[in-house]
Amino acid sequence: MNLSIAIRNRRSIRRYKQKPVDDKLLLELIDVARLAPSGGNMQQLRYVVVRTPEVVQKLFAHTGWGGHVRPKRSPEWGKSAPLAFIAVIASADNVSTHKIVYADAGAAIQNMLLKAVELGLGTCWIGNFKEENVSPILGLTPEMKTMYLVAVGYPDETPVQEDIDTGTPTKYFLDDKDVIHVPKFKVDAITIWK
Amino acid sequence: MNLSIAIRNRRSIRRYKQKPVDDKLLLELIDVARLAPSGGNMQQLRYVVVRTPEVVQKLFAHTGWGGHVRPKRSPEWGKSAPLAFIAVIASADNVSTHKIVYADAGAAIQNMLLKAVELGLGTCWIGNFKEENVSPILGLTPEMKTMYLVAVGYPDETPVQEDIDTGTPTKYFLDDKDVIHVPKFKVDAITIWK
Repeated sequence: MNLSIAIRNRRSIRRYKQKPVDDKLLLELIDVARLAPSGGNMQQLRYVVVRTPEVVQKLFAHTGWGGHVRPKRSPEWGKSAPLAFIAVIASADNVSTHKIVYADAGAAIQNMLLKAVELGLGTCWIGNFKEENVSPILGLTPEMKTMYLVAVGYPDETPVQEDIDTGTPTKYFLDDKDVIHVPKFKVDAITIWK
Repeated sequence: MNLSIAIRNRRSIRRYKQKPVDDKLLLELIDVARLAPSGGNMQQLRYVVVRTPEVVQKLFAHTGWGGHVRPKRSPEWGKSAPLAFIAVIASADNVSTHKIVYADAGAAIQNMLLKAVELGLGTCWIGNFKEENVSPILGLTPEMKTMYLVAVGYPDETPVQEDIDTGTPTKYFLDDKDVIHVPKFKVDAITIWK
């Protein structure tokens, strides 16, 4: 898939078809995450791929979805919830003291989100969970912490993007056809030239 | 350009041709940065595009390059230095208290790095500078802080990637033909299945 199309078509998906995702595709996502740059090439991130239904369900119960979407847009287990998660994890020491590991995670996750578009998959990058609830479900020792979860599945909605000017609210919203609209600042609203 | 090729071919570039980068191309980079996801769609990041030679030179003097490359690989002003920088900035409050803005920056920067590959440009994501030296050069008020600099220019080197196993050193190195080798963990070394 063309890069620009992947970048433009990537949207957070909060409704999924109940069709499992092949391990081979999940592996392809990790394979692009590992190619992202990292501070000093230290490669501090590790990945837990979760697709066993019982474990996915346990994780799902601890995730918060689209807190800023009005009305709220939470998927329902067994109906619209994702069938896989990829947990991005790192050492407790790195997570608590080094901000660069968050930037590393952002770059690695972005590679995964773009690759997912190419594979026909939908994703949602989730930070809304309590680490102390999620890490034990993943079987992590106290030395490792869960930074983010990426929900993965076949998309069952098509959110749309709107360009907005500075000063316009950035909150996404549902229209009367139940479609999510995602406002994004125009390039001129966020750029200074020197 | 194909997404997977962009992901695979993206490498940090530390030697640039002395050919200016058109403003139109720099704008295309910001235009993909803005399409990256952000926590709660808050879009906290702003961008300063620097291509006036005097300002680029001042910034360049404050940047550290490839600290882990042995022997050191610092570009030289007027010979191999980049001819543009994109500064990723955010409010002082966000930078000091919210880790998500670092993850946002990582995702936005990754979009720019990939798009640069498509445009035939090389980039280097730089975190090695003192914020208090760089922000005044950019004319920022104390309310805004520089998070990262992205060097942009036409590449004048071709680093290569090597796949490595767990336990192998991640430090990149120069071979006897002056080519940088970048070791990256194999997917199995960084993935747990649940």
